[in-house]
Amino acid sequence: MNITRRELGRLAAAAAITRMVPWAHSQDRTIGYCIVGLGRISMQHFMPGIKPSKRCRVTALVSGHRDKAEKMAAEYNVPAASIYGYENYDAIAGNKDIDAVYIALPNSMHAEYTIRAAKAGKHVLCEKPMATSVADSRAMIEACRKVAKKLMIAYRCQYEPTNLRAIQLIRDGKLGKIQAIESANGFNIRAGEWRLNRKLAGGGPLMDVGVYSLNACRYLTGEEPREFRGYSSVMDQDGRFTEVEENLSWTMKFPSGVVASCNTSYGVGMPGFYRVHGTKGMLHVEPAFGYQGQRLTARIQGEEPLDEPNPNKDPSQFTPQADHLAECILQNKEPKSPGQDGLQDMIHMAAIYRSCGRA
Amino acid sequence: MNITRRELGRLAAAAAITRMVPWAHSQDRTIGYCIVGLGRISMQHFMPGIKPSKRCRVTALVSGHRDKAEKMAAEYNVPAASIYGYENYDAIAGNKDIDAVYIALPNSMHAEYTIRAAKAGKHVLCEKPMATSVADSRAMIEACRKVAKKLMIAYRCQYEPTNLRAIQLIRDGKLGKIQAIESANGFNIRAGEWRLNRKLAGGGPLMDVGVYSLNACRYLTGEEPREFRGYSSVMDQDGRFTEVEENLSWTMKFPSGVVASCNTSYGVGMPGFYRVHGTKGMLHVEPAFGYQGQRLTARIQGEEPLDEPNPNKDPSQFTPQADHLAECILQNKEPKSPGQDGLQDMIHMAAIYRSCGRA
Repeated sequence: MNITRRELGRLAAAAAITRMVPWAHSQDRTIGYCIVGLGRISMQHFMPGIKPSKRCRVTALVSGHRDKAEKMAAEYNVPAASIYGYENYDAIAGNKDIDAVYIALPNSMHAEYTIRAAKAGKHVLCEKPMATSVADSRAMIEACRKVAKKLMIAYRCQYEPTNLRAIQLIRDGKLGKIQAIESANGFNIRAGEWRLNRKLAGGGPLMDVGVYSLNACRYLTGEEPREFRGYSSVMDQDGRFTEVEENLSWTMKFPSGVVASCNTSYGVGMPGFYRVHGTKGMLHVEPAFGYQGQRLTARIQGEEPLDEPNPNKDPSQFTPQADHLAECILQNKEPKSPGQDGLQDMIHMAAIYRSCGRA
Repeated sequence: MNITRRELGRLAAAAAITRMVPWAHSQDRTIGYCIVGLGRISMQHFMPGIKPSKRCRVTALVSGHRDKAEKMAAEYNVPAASIYGYENYDAIAGNKDIDAVYIALPNSMHAEYTIRAAKAGKHVLCEKPMATSVADSRAMIEACRKVAKKLMIAYRCQYEPTNLRAIQLIRDGKLGKIQAIESANGFNIRAGEWRLNRKLAGGGPLMDVGVYSLNACRYLTGEEPREFRGYSSVMDQDGRFTEVEENLSWTMKFPSGVVASCNTSYGVGMPGFYRVHGTKGMLHVEPAFGYQGQRLTARIQGEEPLDEPNPNKDPSQFTPQADHLAECILQNKEPKSPGQDGLQDMIHMAAIYRSCGRA
């Protein structure tokens, strides 16, 4: 084939337009989420977070409590036909208003409901931790891959402005070479929560809240930690911790040489924070992982100290998270926190548990 | 012997007075310190810290630099006859104005100069880390024990008001049961410092500044940690870290189940802090270990949040430290931070280094 440079230019421009079409077209379209599990995070955070979105809306609900589901359906204009129970969950396959499911169930149910969603031809946004085992995590990734559906883990902080600002400062080299990180995240858990049941939760505070520190150390450094050593303990003898650890402290090392020390707990309040130390400065984010109030302070050589409370008056962090998957679906992009991101944390947490003698 | 209850009472009272005499008498007396090593900590901190003291004064100097020593001698009214070099250090034995020596030499010299001081019949206040090996630390304790002289390690923070306040809050049960601690302390070291020489320093940032976190975890919990796991790394390839570690991150577990995660570094600025988490609240001290500016914040269930900058407008922390040994000498009491305290840290640090593969 013999074409001139000018013809090539025209072809390229045409191709560019063609590539743009699906996206241009998709601007008109919103992504419908089916909410799987009506607990606190769904009802008080995820669904209200979708309200202001122009990219997505709640189109279906899955719950074992019909009355609760009907109340939420009324609030979100979900038709009665789009309310499902767990027994007829697979029927979501026939509901064209559902593009994606949001899985907010106890950890042990994440794998099953993700895989069934994939089989029903739906994209998946799954809460953290991704699953209760590495094997389940891999099966989830494979199930979504096979049907070419997106799988995104709800690592909310990766879509939250203050955490993004911290990442950007680091990527811009403002702190110089990163060498060490401290982080912690924990809370004093109420007796009777499913999180204390090892079968349902897969583990204790590490799986539930320590995973924020672990994930943060990974997105802050942009590296995968390679070695892990830690200790776990149970101090409260009030019967809460017969199945999972109460406290867990670990240190990890990254290939570059960065070291990180982290704490997590279900026995004591432990405000979520991280501080990152580089050769040219340090930054501290606290609160780092909560639903609101994020604040970044930093001391950088030769610059005025930074003190940045969340600039946007704490809009819901759930909006940009839900919007991100919507965009990925509409533009056929890989989510920033795909199943692989969740799997890495699962693999790392298994290693941390092994180092603590809790295999 | 047959004595009445009343006679017994009189005897007891008489005995009490007798016991009181040395102390009552000693109120008039000040303790004379011989400063061994005229570096930054001696000249800029310890000696000025003694100036306002009513318990002690500088009565002698040991230095390899006669001119520097003479300048300091003039400032502190030390007679020329009480200026020693390292070659005639043992002559301090004959100087009755010297009760105690303050050892502020490179770490590797602590043992020798402590043991020689004991042989000269002097009490010893030795800078941290106590020595460069566990064996040397034991030898120092034994040398002082044999001649019935005090050996105190200069763990300044144990005499500093904000750290004491933190300890008190914990002992008073304000935080409930302590379960987890985070701490860090580090700085970006200049090339050429003796601290980078393994033989002189005994180790890297762990020995020099990480020891503050270790010691703090011990005085905050009142327990000895039993297990240690960590990682060290060298990232800067500028030649500073050919002998000692650059970064070190470790976690440790106490018999009660308390876990602690700590970081230290010579490669990055790492403001000294600790936060202690209990079942009823938490406290955060930062700066925790510096020469001034200590600040404690705490959130305790059912109480107003605490925010306590050092209440005494940052008087020298060196005054109460020097005064404490003076009191111990005058009252024949064991120092609050005796040689045994330093030895424990040395044993623990050796375990941390072993866990990092740096035996």
